[in-house]
Amino acid sequence: MYLSLKKAALEANLALPAFNLVTLTWGNVSQVDRANGVMAIKPSGVSYEQMQVEDIVVVRLDNGAVVDGQLNPSSDTETHRVLYQAFPDIGGIVHTHSRHATIWAQAGMDIPALGTTHADYFYGDIPCTRQLTDREISVDYETHTGKVIVECFRQLKLNPNAMPGALISGHAPFCWGENASDAVHNAIVLEEVAAMALSTRTLNTRIHLQQALADKHYFRKHGEKAYYGQHH
Amino acid sequence: MYLSLKKAALEANLALPAFNLVTLTWGNVSQVDRANGVMAIKPSGVSYEQMQVEDIVVVRLDNGAVVDGQLNPSSDTETHRVLYQAFPDIGGIVHTHSRHATIWAQAGMDIPALGTTHADYFYGDIPCTRQLTDREISVDYETHTGKVIVECFRQLKLNPNAMPGALISGHAPFCWGENASDAVHNAIVLEEVAAMALSTRTLNTRIHLQQALADKHYFRKHGEKAYYGQHH
Amino acid sequence: MYLSLKKAALEANLALPAFNLVTLTWGNVSQVDRANGVMAIKPSGVSYEQMQVEDIVVVRLDNGAVVDGQLNPSSDTETHRVLYQAFPDIGGIVHTHSRHATIWAQAGMDIPALGTTHADYFYGDIPCTRQLTDREISVDYETHTGKVIVECFRQLKLNPNAMPGALISGHAPFCWGENASDAVHNAIVLEEVAAMALSTRTLNTRIHLQQALADKHYFRKHGEKAYYGQHH
Amino acid sequence: MYLSLKKAALEANLALPAFNLVTLTWGNVSQVDRANGVMAIKPSGVSYEQMQVEDIVVVRLDNGAVVDGQLNPSSDTETHRVLYQAFPDIGGIVHTHSRHATIWAQAGMDIPALGTTHADYFYGDIPCTRQLTDREISVDYETHTGKVIVECFRQLKLNPNAMPGALISGHAPFCWGENASDAVHNAIVLEEVAAMALSTRTLNTRIHLQQALADKHYFRKHGEKAYYGQHH
Repeated sequence: MYLSLKKAALEANLALPAFNLVTLTWGNVSQVDRANGVMAIKPSGVSYEQMQVEDIVVVRLDNGAVVDGQLNPSSDTETHRVLYQAFPDIGGIVHTHSRHATIWAQAGMDIPALGTTHADYFYGDIPCTRQLTDREISVDYETHTGKVIVECFRQLKLNPNAMPGALISGHAPFCWGENASDAVHNAIVLEEVAAMALSTRTLNTRIHLQQALADKHYFRKHGEKAYYGQHH
Repeated sequence: MYLSLKKAALEANLALPAFNLVTLTWGNVSQVDRANGVMAIKPSGVSYEQMQVEDIVVVRLDNGAVVDGQLNPSSDTETHRVLYQAFPDIGGIVHTHSRHATIWAQAGMDIPALGTTHADYFYGDIPCTRQLTDREISVDYETHTGKVIVECFRQLKLNPNAMPGALISGHAPFCWGENASDAVHNAIVLEEVAAMALSTRTLNTRIHLQQALADKHYFRKHGEKAYYGQHH
Repeated sequence: MYLSLKKAALEANLALPAFNLVTLTWGNVSQVDRANGVMAIKPSGVSYEQMQVEDIVVVRLDNGAVVDGQLNPSSDTETHRVLYQAFPDIGGIVHTHSRHATIWAQAGMDIPALGTTHADYFYGDIPCTRQLTDREISVDYETHTGKVIVECFRQLKLNPNAMPGALISGHAPFCWGENASDAVHNAIVLEEVAAMALSTRTLNTRIHLQQALADKHYFRKHGEKAYYGQHH
Repeated sequence: MYLSLKKAALEANLALPAFNLVTLTWGNVSQVDRANGVMAIKPSGVSYEQMQVEDIVVVRLDNGAVVDGQLNPSSDTETHRVLYQAFPDIGGIVHTHSRHATIWAQAGMDIPALGTTHADYFYGDIPCTRQLTDREISVDYETHTGKVIVECFRQLKLNPNAMPGALISGHAPFCWGENASDAVHNAIVLEEVAAMALSTRTLNTRIHLQQALADKHYFRKHGEKAYYGQHH
């Protein structure tokens, strides 16, 4: 059951160590099947070397109940559920502690848009959420982690389709995309632009990408007038 | 048709991931055939793992029309065309978003000549262009990207044969050389000297390479009195 | 004799180069067998490529005498002995000069807890010891290296089970764990959080992890109420 | 002729890319045969992938004349000759542009002794030479590069056996050792301590290694009272 969904989730999870986005088991990817109201996600604390398709856990989107798989789902499952419910167009979610994105999250700072590499994938500064309150941390922590992202996007009027990621203050990034593979793709980009932004800021503390250049690069790749690649 | 030209372009494109100059598909190399008035370039958005010689696109140098190949050429094709037309001695061009060169481009700063590693290949500071105007970005963007490099070289009276690269402000580097392989060689050097210059500046904000040492190292490798290597 | 103990020590030593924690021969791992009052440790100055199980040296915990093996034990053997005697619950110890942890040790600074990656494994700032006195360095140096860690933990009232590592001022880190493999696991985490903390501090010189988040992450993985992974 | 000497030089040259000390062809190693008054050195500008034992060039120590080999010797041959003549105990020399050591050389700064990793191999700060004069650069440049190292060691009263390396201001490091392999070993250490010192200085601008700890670590590994490793 859900074999192709689980295979897509497995493959995307295995891409994390292949692209140097995870140390040990620090990361997880899920893919959603909205027609069946379920998502497939990495099991908790299992090493990538040993992971098999039957280890992937399928849970219901409405209440988190496990419907397929013998293992515990990722401890971050509730965060994924909140994001799928709030952002109806997204099909895959990835959480990592990739080094440079995590550095910005630990600093509690947005990643400023400083170049076209950033603008090709993320339309604007990549937001860092507010800190969670002690109460939000102590009760339903993983649910609140998802909710603080959603709150951040609503307050900043961000479109999750044009801003496929966010940083959790003091923690690490979440990214998403059309499916699990696309979410991992965005996580690779996030890590690279986070590294570039860090050193750009040491050379020049005030520069910011021109809005016209941000528009040009984002819409060169996305939307009706896109002309990058082979599919337009 | 144009098989050896396409093979040279393919090989140089495949060298980009081999030398860690690209993430995903962010880079492209071309080689020119001036006798036939064409250039061969990477297709747009195709992954390096899958690229075959038949995917390489050949376009006319005078008007950019595709004369060989089924795929769309790189979205940066117009920039390559402008550079080949303005710099008559160059035979290959490479564009990457290699991390450290891009950091200097994002900062909008020239890479200062701080050591002999730099002087062995680049005669003087590696220039960063001015920002494009909003109008240059909105209409014929890729053409203007080439033109702003040419303008920069004319204003600074730089010789493109002795300064085989430039940074586009807010974007990333372009390098060139005698052919596609030589252009990639210069892109490797650019990335390394960009990384070294970044940390040298954190230790010493004012130092600059002695002119005598810049002269010595550049002309030890280039021109009539060169004595480095086996071919002099 | 002590074959499984020596195999566990060998395997953990070989994990050091596999996880990029050592340059050349700069590191050593031991595992203790408390029932027999012995520990197995890397031989001194032997390269990882050549190391065999018969090269591992077994020494008595009470007086350091070699009971198995032809080679000299690691020159840091006395430090390991002091730590096993002072911290009764630990089963393995690792010493490396991994780059970023060593940078903090050389700076003589604690690694501040700045994110949940840190909090998942280390409960609080990772302490850096005071400098040794000239006398402590000149006589029984390796013994005093162990003692200054123990002194640091007593003065700060740190629990070695919740703080599985420390930095020696001017030197490098020691980590420990339930066994040799677990100690290496903690050394991998230490290196990663040391790298992240270094750059986080360049972005934000004052931030510190919220105590509620430190508690949440540490106790999500450790103790009676842990719910991370498959074994709870 | 000189086959074992050439093999030792070849093997040490091939270790440079294996230990990530060189980009492209930027590095060279030599080994001396003092009984026969010759040294074997890398040919100029030949790639490491293609290098064979017959490509290694043997030159006379007294006048630099080629006595074996068809290719041009490294353009840095004269620097090696000066160092072998001035430092009678050394048996191998290596020159690289390894990233972090070169950063310190470009900054024109000594690498301060900040930890025991440094003290295990280099007794004191690793010196950076003064800048060469324009005249020294224009005539017999490579000879003067060697002479400025020798001058630096005489003025600072440094023992080349206890300080097996130096930085050339604006250029890059030279290291040496008992033979070519030992020189490469020291070049690996230099690169690592250069990287560590760079970031240590960003955390703490004033700290320096205690002299007692420098003495302890250096003499634990070197001289009559050494007790590190298997050979004492």
